[in-house]
Amino acid sequence: MRDPKTGRMNGVFAAGLTMLNDDLSIDVAGTVAHSRWMLSNGCDGVLLLGTTGEANSFSLKERLDFLDRVAASGLPLDRVMIGTGCCAEPDTVALTKLAVQMGSVGPLALPPFYFKGVSDEELFQTFARVIDKVNEPKMRLYLYHIPQMSGVPFSHAVIERLIRAYPGIVVGLKDSSGDRANMLAMCEKFPGFDVFSGSEAFLLDVLRKGGVGTISASVNVTCPLAGRVYKAWRENDPAVDKLQTDLTALRGAFQGYGFQSTLKEILARSSGNPRWRNTRPPFLPMKPADGDAFMHKLSDVGFEVQRLAA
Amino acid sequence: MRDPKTGRMNGVFAAGLTMLNDDLSIDVAGTVAHSRWMLSNGCDGVLLLGTTGEANSFSLKERLDFLDRVAASGLPLDRVMIGTGCCAEPDTVALTKLAVQMGSVGPLALPPFYFKGVSDEELFQTFARVIDKVNEPKMRLYLYHIPQMSGVPFSHAVIERLIRAYPGIVVGLKDSSGDRANMLAMCEKFPGFDVFSGSEAFLLDVLRKGGVGTISASVNVTCPLAGRVYKAWRENDPAVDKLQTDLTALRGAFQGYGFQSTLKEILARSSGNPRWRNTRPPFLPMKPADGDAFMHKLSDVGFEVQRLAA
Repeated sequence: MRDPKTGRMNGVFAAGLTMLNDDLSIDVAGTVAHSRWMLSNGCDGVLLLGTTGEANSFSLKERLDFLDRVAASGLPLDRVMIGTGCCAEPDTVALTKLAVQMGSVGPLALPPFYFKGVSDEELFQTFARVIDKVNEPKMRLYLYHIPQMSGVPFSHAVIERLIRAYPGIVVGLKDSSGDRANMLAMCEKFPGFDVFSGSEAFLLDVLRKGGVGTISASVNVTCPLAGRVYKAWRENDPAVDKLQTDLTALRGAFQGYGFQSTLKEILARSSGNPRWRNTRPPFLPMKPADGDAFMHKLSDVGFEVQRLAA
Repeated sequence: MRDPKTGRMNGVFAAGLTMLNDDLSIDVAGTVAHSRWMLSNGCDGVLLLGTTGEANSFSLKERLDFLDRVAASGLPLDRVMIGTGCCAEPDTVALTKLAVQMGSVGPLALPPFYFKGVSDEELFQTFARVIDKVNEPKMRLYLYHIPQMSGVPFSHAVIERLIRAYPGIVVGLKDSSGDRANMLAMCEKFPGFDVFSGSEAFLLDVLRKGGVGTISASVNVTCPLAGRVYKAWRENDPAVDKLQTDLTALRGAFQGYGFQSTLKEILARSSGNPRWRNTRPPFLPMKPADGDAFMHKLSDVGFEVQRLAA
C-alpha cells in the first residue's frame, strides 16, 4: 500500500514475468493481464522488466515499445515499477526517463553489469551521471542489488553517498542477494530508505526492522499468500508468523530452480496457455518431466495450481 | 599473418582501445589512427569493440554507426575482428551480421552475460539461434571465453558441440580466463580450431601447442615486442624464449590494474593527447599520481613510452 508519510508504494511486489509470443516477441496483452491478476491477488505493485521479466534479453527498442504499450494499456502505473539499468549509459538514461515520464512507481536500476571490480567512486559517478542526465526532479530511483547476476554490488558506503547526494531521489533498494543480514543492516542504517527484500522469505523480517516490503520472482504465484502476510503484519494479526512460515516454505520449493522457466511452466499449467512456456535465450522451456516433478514439490507445501487465475 | 591452409588471420591481435571525444562519443578517426599504428607495429590484426574497447558501454546504435565509419575509413578490414556478443539476441544478430558483411576477420561473440548458471544446452541453443539468424555461410565466428566478466564460461563440451554443428563457421576462441592449462588443453583437444590466448604472456606457450596467437588488451602498447615474439617463433629463431620472457615481464606490469584507464593513460602520455584519458562509465580516468607510479613500473621492465607513436 501507499505509505502516507512518503507517498511511495510499499508492500508486496512481483518481479513480473514477461509473456512471449511464439516468435519470442513480447505478448503485451498477456503480460498486462497477468500483472492485473497479481494486482488483484495480493500484490501492491508489480515490477516490469526486471530479472524475472528477462529484461536484458530484449533490445532497447523492444523495451521502449513495450513500455509505451503498457502506458496505454490502462494498467495502474502508480503501482508499476520499471527495471531500467543497462550496460550502456544512453540505454539506461532513455529507459529511466521513460519510467519517470510514464508515471511509474519509479525506475529500479541495475549498475552497468559487464565490467567487474567497479570501485565505489566509479559506481557513484556512474549513477550521478545518469541522474543528472535524466534530470527529472520527481524521479524516485530504486537501486537493484543482485550481485550474483550483476557482479557489481552496492556497498553501504556508496548507498549512503547516493542518498546524501540525491535526497528524495535515491529512495530505496531491492536486495536480491539472499543475504538476510545485509537487508536488516540496511534497514537499520538507512532510516527512511525503502528496503525491499528480493525474496518473500524475508518479508516479515524486513518489515519488522523498518523495511517496506518485498519484490520477488516467486510472488508471480505466491502473491495471494504474500499479500496475507503483509496484511496480517499491518493489522498486528498474531497469525502473521504462521503465515510467513507457510510463505517461506512455498518460496523454498523454488530452491535450485531457475525462476523464469519454472514460473512460466506453472503459469502455462494454471492458465492452459502453452505460450507461457516461451522464453528468450539463454533460457529454454522446462522439460515436461521436470515440470511434473516441480508441481509435486509445490503440492507438498500445500500449493494448488488451480488457485491461480486462468 | 594469414594461415595459408585456413585462410584465416593468426598471430598478434590487440584488443584495441576506443578513443573518445570529451562528450564521451567515439572519436572514430583517433581510434582508426591508433589501430593503423598497431597494424604497422607488430600487430597482425586488431579487435575492435572488445572488452578493452569498452564495447558494452555503447548503445547498439553507437556500435553500428562506429562500424559503418570504420568500414569507410580504409582500415584493412581483413585484419579487423569485431566484438559482437550482447545480452539481447536482436542486438547480437545485428552486430554479427554487420561484422560479416563488412568483410572483417570475423565476429568475436560473448555469450549473453547477464543471467548466470546457463547450461551447456542453453548456451548451445543460444549460439545456434544466432548463427541461424545471421545466416551468412561465409561467417567465421570466434567464441569469447572471459568468465571473470561474462560469468558464462564455454565448457569444452559446448565448444565441441558448436564446432561439430557448424564446421567452418565456429572456427576459434579467445581465452581470456588467464587459465593457461585451459588454453593448452583446447589446443590439444580441438585441432584446426583457432585458439588465441587472451594474454600475450601465454603467446609462445599457445603457439607451441598448436594455438594461433593472442588477442590481448596490453598489446595496445606491447605490440612491437609481441610482434617480435611471433616473428621469432615463425622463423625458429632461438631468441624467441628470451623475447617471450621480456614480453611476459612487460605484461606483468599490468597485474592489478584495470586495462582500460591504464592503457588510456599510457596513450595520453605517449601521444600528448589528453583526450585519450576519456572513458565511458563505469570507468574513470587514472589519477595523475597513479599514472606516475604505473609509468615507473613500466620503466622498471624496460618499457619506454617514447617508443609509441604520437
